[in-house]
Amino acid sequence: MDLPLIKRKELDFQLYECLDTETLCQRARFFEHSRDTFNAVLDTAERIATDKFAPHNTLADKAEPEFNGQSVTMLDAVKSAVDAYNEAGFIAGRYDYEEGGMQLPETVMTACAGYFMAANPSTTAYPFLTVAAANVIRTFASDAVKSAFLPRMLEGTYTGTMALTEPHAGSSLADIKTRAVKQDDGTYRIKGSKLYISAGEHELSENIIHLVLAKIDGAPDGVKGISLFAVPKYRLDSNNELADKNDVALAGLIHKLGYRGTTSTALSFGDNDDCLGYLIGEENVGLKYMFQMMNEARLGVGFGAAMIGYRGYQYSLAYAKDRLQGRAAPNIAPSDPQVPIIEHGDVKRMLLAQKAYVEGAMALCFYGARLVDDIHTLEDKNARKESTELLDLLTPAIKAWPSEFGVKANDLAIQVLGGAGYTREYPVEQCWRDNRLNPIHEGTNGIQALDLLTRKLWQNRGMGLGLLQARIEADFAKVSSDDVKALVHAVSPYLAQFVSILPNAAKGLGDTRLPASLANASCMLNVFSTLLVSWMWIRQANTAANALTRATSEDDLHFYQGKLQAAKYFIRWELPLIKRDLNILTHFDSCCADMQQEWF
Amino acid sequence: MDLPLIKRKELDFQLYECLDTETLCQRARFFEHSRDTFNAVLDTAERIATDKFAPHNTLADKAEPEFNGQSVTMLDAVKSAVDAYNEAGFIAGRYDYEEGGMQLPETVMTACAGYFMAANPSTTAYPFLTVAAANVIRTFASDAVKSAFLPRMLEGTYTGTMALTEPHAGSSLADIKTRAVKQDDGTYRIKGSKLYISAGEHELSENIIHLVLAKIDGAPDGVKGISLFAVPKYRLDSNNELADKNDVALAGLIHKLGYRGTTSTALSFGDNDDCLGYLIGEENVGLKYMFQMMNEARLGVGFGAAMIGYRGYQYSLAYAKDRLQGRAAPNIAPSDPQVPIIEHGDVKRMLLAQKAYVEGAMALCFYGARLVDDIHTLEDKNARKESTELLDLLTPAIKAWPSEFGVKANDLAIQVLGGAGYTREYPVEQCWRDNRLNPIHEGTNGIQALDLLTRKLWQNRGMGLGLLQARIEADFAKVSSDDVKALVHAVSPYLAQFVSILPNAAKGLGDTRLPASLANASCMLNVFSTLLVSWMWIRQANTAANALTRATSEDDLHFYQGKLQAAKYFIRWELPLIKRDLNILTHFDSCCADMQQEWF
Repeated sequence: MDLPLIKRKELDFQLYECLDTETLCQRARFFEHSRDTFNAVLDTAERIATDKFAPHNTLADKAEPEFNGQSVTMLDAVKSAVDAYNEAGFIAGRYDYEEGGMQLPETVMTACAGYFMAANPSTTAYPFLTVAAANVIRTFASDAVKSAFLPRMLEGTYTGTMALTEPHAGSSLADIKTRAVKQDDGTYRIKGSKLYISAGEHELSENIIHLVLAKIDGAPDGVKGISLFAVPKYRLDSNNELADKNDVALAGLIHKLGYRGTTSTALSFGDNDDCLGYLIGEENVGLKYMFQMMNEARLGVGFGAAMIGYRGYQYSLAYAKDRLQGRAAPNIAPSDPQVPIIEHGDVKRMLLAQKAYVEGAMALCFYGARLVDDIHTLEDKNARKESTELLDLLTPAIKAWPSEFGVKANDLAIQVLGGAGYTREYPVEQCWRDNRLNPIHEGTNGIQALDLLTRKLWQNRGMGLGLLQARIEADFAKVSSDDVKALVHAVSPYLAQFVSILPNAAKGLGDTRLPASLANASCMLNVFSTLLVSWMWIRQANTAANALTRATSEDDLHFYQGKLQAAKYFIRWELPLIKRDLNILTHFDSCCADMQQEWF
Repeated sequence: MDLPLIKRKELDFQLYECLDTETLCQRARFFEHSRDTFNAVLDTAERIATDKFAPHNTLADKAEPEFNGQSVTMLDAVKSAVDAYNEAGFIAGRYDYEEGGMQLPETVMTACAGYFMAANPSTTAYPFLTVAAANVIRTFASDAVKSAFLPRMLEGTYTGTMALTEPHAGSSLADIKTRAVKQDDGTYRIKGSKLYISAGEHELSENIIHLVLAKIDGAPDGVKGISLFAVPKYRLDSNNELADKNDVALAGLIHKLGYRGTTSTALSFGDNDDCLGYLIGEENVGLKYMFQMMNEARLGVGFGAAMIGYRGYQYSLAYAKDRLQGRAAPNIAPSDPQVPIIEHGDVKRMLLAQKAYVEGAMALCFYGARLVDDIHTLEDKNARKESTELLDLLTPAIKAWPSEFGVKANDLAIQVLGGAGYTREYPVEQCWRDNRLNPIHEGTNGIQALDLLTRKLWQNRGMGLGLLQARIEADFAKVSSDDVKALVHAVSPYLAQFVSILPNAAKGLGDTRLPASLANASCMLNVFSTLLVSWMWIRQANTAANALTRATSEDDLHFYQGKLQAAKYFIRWELPLIKRDLNILTHFDSCCADMQQEWF
């Protein structure tokens, strides 16, 4: 089926109707931009994603990268796609004009990212990791390190990785064993093993810059002794030209359930005690730098999950309109013609649930992207600080909820297709497999739940939470149509109950209820995220209700009706499920905490 | 990790403590059996499953069957496993001694099946399909057809398939196009295409007997005109010895997401107008015969899903005990040793949820198996009739709930393993992929929901439902410990609410609320299934509470404590989620039904 990767009307709605992205053009940084220039960039992204990324998505899943003893080989199409991405200037899209960038807002860059993620998440991972690594170097590295690596990364001739995880240290970075020893010339020698390093080896670029977490000899224990290093695959000479190979070796390729086109590697640094690394920023502050990258990555993971979910939704929707099967009352005689399965109520349910999940998740991610823009470009310093607090608070939800519900959406897409959905002859099973990575990487959803429960909710005396409440209430107050008011009416008591349990939840972290609190962290994340997505649906429903009064084309009328219906679905069918979690949190249910290892 | 496929204590608990399977030996049919003979059969199943099935489970997933133009080839290990299964007499395990069977109860055969499903669901599919096809032939075919095929099927030299689905007819069997034309000799010529036929082609047996649904020329429209035929891959001569090839051709192999070791085929019958088929039973009654097979298959699908879920649970449990990561309060200094991840509350939650899903599902399936035994071997005719009604009512839930929650359990197993869980170097991702078939085949879970809502709940004026209520109440009345009484107390209001909404739900099927009723069918199935599993957990908890007062070994004490805790978890964490569904059903929420095709 020949489907657009994303319906442009959906992007227009999210960007220009819900978020009013055009107003960004009034800010100094985006002064030379307009809706037209934004759209031109979106057109380019759509074209490259459609022409260069989408065609080999299935192929790359089947023909995984291989190590031939010398180098890692993969489909040629991957390199042409990545090259096209680089040539269009997307890597530096966010950067200043002087740096060769396009000074585009995060909101617009996120929309562009949507096309690539919907087209081919595996190939997209290569440039995205480069963008993330380049950002860290740009923000924290010395001028010398910057000038060595950054320009090449921005043009895409060098790529980047995040090398955090070790065989025995995943979620617990405090326990990494990779060591760094300072040399007389100010560089370091790195030694250690890293695991699950995406894009850790390939021939897509002239050089790979690994951002490696390591401990300098004598550093403090735990996370306070972690430093960050740029470790190139190939060293540079004094003119910053490629020289000999650094002591970084591919220890093995890992074979994943999905995202098969992205190499996942085990890397050995310093097997021959000659692995050169450059300190980024100061010693022992590495985790902080890495967390800037990680937080951006978390937003990206959530959005990518939403887009893979969206892709499965669109495919299953098209299939359901096309596939004839069975009859619908009252015309159920064998002589009556069969109907497209979209006319069966249970199929509608599965499609509506997908729509509610993925478009709710998209709205949440775009909201986060807008906060990034506000952090960087609002004039008022206080307002920037507020945006920072708010984004910090939302980050665990933006990472976790779309990744959990993206997989659920893809599961429903398979179910809509029935037996066909279970075969590799149709694309939805790959969506499901690809998406399953998202609840795991860049901090598992369990880690996100702990981050929310033990840190983010209370950060700066709950400043983010106060701001969030005010924003939600302001949006609710704007609602004018009766339909949407009914939805606000349905959400408000849940919101109030959530707020009311927080003081006790905070206390529980400091007394004997700690084990139960921690074991139930997922309930807190679920309540919080579901309320956020409910809010996003009320924002979308309100926008749609207002637009309906002005819309004239039949397509637009249908589009806005669909938004209203999906909002109703989410608030009537999904929101009530958090009653369970609220109850567990209120009573510090100790079922899970009490379970003993020996009882399993 | 070297894990037993199933903990024997778990099977003992389900078979002998919860179901009192030994009492079956008092019935005439099982008079020569005892707990010892049952255990000997279980030992054999465990041994063959462990030695012959488990070792190639991963290999067969990687090396899929291939068609070389002449025949379908696969790993040799598949044939040796199937041969070992056949040689041990499992195919005829349920049959009379005179037929070469072992006269074993369904309950015990189900437990044996558990070992094979936990070891290798793909290879297990071959003999299981043969058993199912043999049962239909044994029950409904003429003596001539029986003598031609049955003895060979029971010894495993012939295998069987179910050939229902066609490219344009999956859930809607009324629309099959395969035709049958009667010949002068009483045989039929079959012509048509079938799709997704598992085990449709291979070299594991001398012959393959396809049970094919087709319409005889001039038959009534729709399901009332469907007949069932035995169509062999090779014809037999007048001495029932193999003769020339029948006109059945492999049109192609289908490549699935999981169950990759089982061939999935597109088959062409009668490309050369020379496909010989034998009518089974009477003309136009084929769907009824096939539904006997289908109903057995549905029980098998549910149980298989529970077992794949169980396997993932056991693996993730062992991993969680072994994998060190992070620290647990209060010893969280970097210098403190890391703890096994099972000590983290959120990991406990994911393990406890898996336990509650898969052991709850197993209990439900064993309960169903016991009903099969009661249908066949209770002395009192009325009691047999009651068992039939009850099993009919439970079947949609036994098929759907374990298949939905088996996948959920495997999803949690992946999450417990984190990054490792996402790789094919660990076994849990295959469990997840394999299990994803189960909500689809043998009637999608959407079909199960409709079956429950529009038929089974009301069958014979709700006789099954009345019997079910009486059984639940009787079990609840038996509970003596305060702990378990508290659980009964928690379940009872939900059960009462379910019962109270039924009269209106019945009315809704006959008036303008029909579309909403059908669109919300999954809610009814979810309420019904969750209440059943809650009941199963109360039965297990009560058994465990009683056993705790007598248990002496530490292992037993832990085992029973675990059962109590999992029951608590299910009833406190999972049961309350049906409030949402009860509310939707009570109000005939029309969100999904109202959604229009154009609005998506």
